[in-house]
Amino acid sequence: MDPKAFYAMSYGVYVVSTWDNGRPTGCTANCAAQITSAPATVMVSINKDNYTNRCIRDCGHFAISILAETSEPSVIGRFGFRSGRDTDKFDGVPYSIRDKLPILDDCCAYIACKVIDKMETSTHTVFLGEVIGAETLKKGTPMTYAYYHNVIKGKTGKNSPTYVAEEQAPAATEKYVCSVCKYVYVGDVPFENLPEDWTCPICGAPKSKFEKI
Amino acid sequence: MDPKAFYAMSYGVYVVSTWDNGRPTGCTANCAAQITSAPATVMVSINKDNYTNRCIRDCGHFAISILAETSEPSVIGRFGFRSGRDTDKFDGVPYSIRDKLPILDDCCAYIACKVIDKMETSTHTVFLGEVIGAETLKKGTPMTYAYYHNVIKGKTGKNSPTYVAEEQAPAATEKYVCSVCKYVYVGDVPFENLPEDWTCPICGAPKSKFEKI
Repeated sequence: MDPKAFYAMSYGVYVVSTWDNGRPTGCTANCAAQITSAPATVMVSINKDNYTNRCIRDCGHFAISILAETSEPSVIGRFGFRSGRDTDKFDGVPYSIRDKLPILDDCCAYIACKVIDKMETSTHTVFLGEVIGAETLKKGTPMTYAYYHNVIKGKTGKNSPTYVAEEQAPAATEKYVCSVCKYVYVGDVPFENLPEDWTCPICGAPKSKFEKI
Repeated sequence: MDPKAFYAMSYGVYVVSTWDNGRPTGCTANCAAQITSAPATVMVSINKDNYTNRCIRDCGHFAISILAETSEPSVIGRFGFRSGRDTDKFDGVPYSIRDKLPILDDCCAYIACKVIDKMETSTHTVFLGEVIGAETLKKGTPMTYAYYHNVIKGKTGKNSPTYVAEEQAPAATEKYVCSVCKYVYVGDVPFENLPEDWTCPICGAPKSKFEKI
């Protein structure tokens, strides 16, 4: 079995949000899809280790904010590499309450859902949601997972369905890793030559937070 | 609710195949995703009206052939706009048996699965499959659903999760529809001026099979 075969599947980049006892929380996800159009129904796959998984169960509702290529990439790291258990992920992130759920302002569209079924796998829960609201928020090309990897040079969180361990440990030397989000800098410019005000493209951490690996 | 919000979700383009009592069959799908990596597990969503749905239930196995941007687009129409009930969809289509399942030769990768669970919705079945084999077959950019719509100008089958009725009935006049696959020609060149050897980009039918609507 060649794990690289899985890389050929296409995904978007989403922030799946819900409520945690009145506090907004959520996580980054790439596995979300429309399942049927009448009645409109979508699914998301969320790791059982993610705090968001428990919160969706308790709340019974979730929303999908669909990121655009122009969306600020640091939001992906903020929602993907930290836990809502001990972080207020929405702190400082512009959002609005739409259809009674927290939706990022910086996304091209959102879909709000009521959980109607779920399927458990070894690591992830597939939540099936009947759509209670959906709107386009701004024009723009939706961000694909390929764009996130190839253009933004983003990494995959360890709780993602598509995570492979090797991704966190590249073979080349002189790599630098962000101590906050584990993003590995692989740009053409030597890390030492990057300007001092350069920041992690994923989580926004300053250059000083990077460590040689 | 704005149905256009759903268009912002990203998908690939796949042919999901299985066996029908020893005969290969399958259908086009856009909703397939990896759900977990250990053990590798993927899902596909298949309309209950599709003959392939019943065949996957009976066979207990399915494979996903992941199309590339360079894959012959007529295969999408062939597998998406005809039924395996009365058509031998694989007739004339190059394929190989890999991991005991029929796989298109003209794809960038495949994933073969054993069904381990399923979830029913009003119109579709979500099949969960444990991966029994996966290989990259050739280099190339995987085809996204956006590429299929925007570059190939493909249409959505009525059994697709993302089908909306309006798509089949454009408001403009002087449109021509393929009587085989229902593809509506919307190119800049007037239909009458297309060369006589022009064929439907979706199912490969000749120009003579198009009807004015």
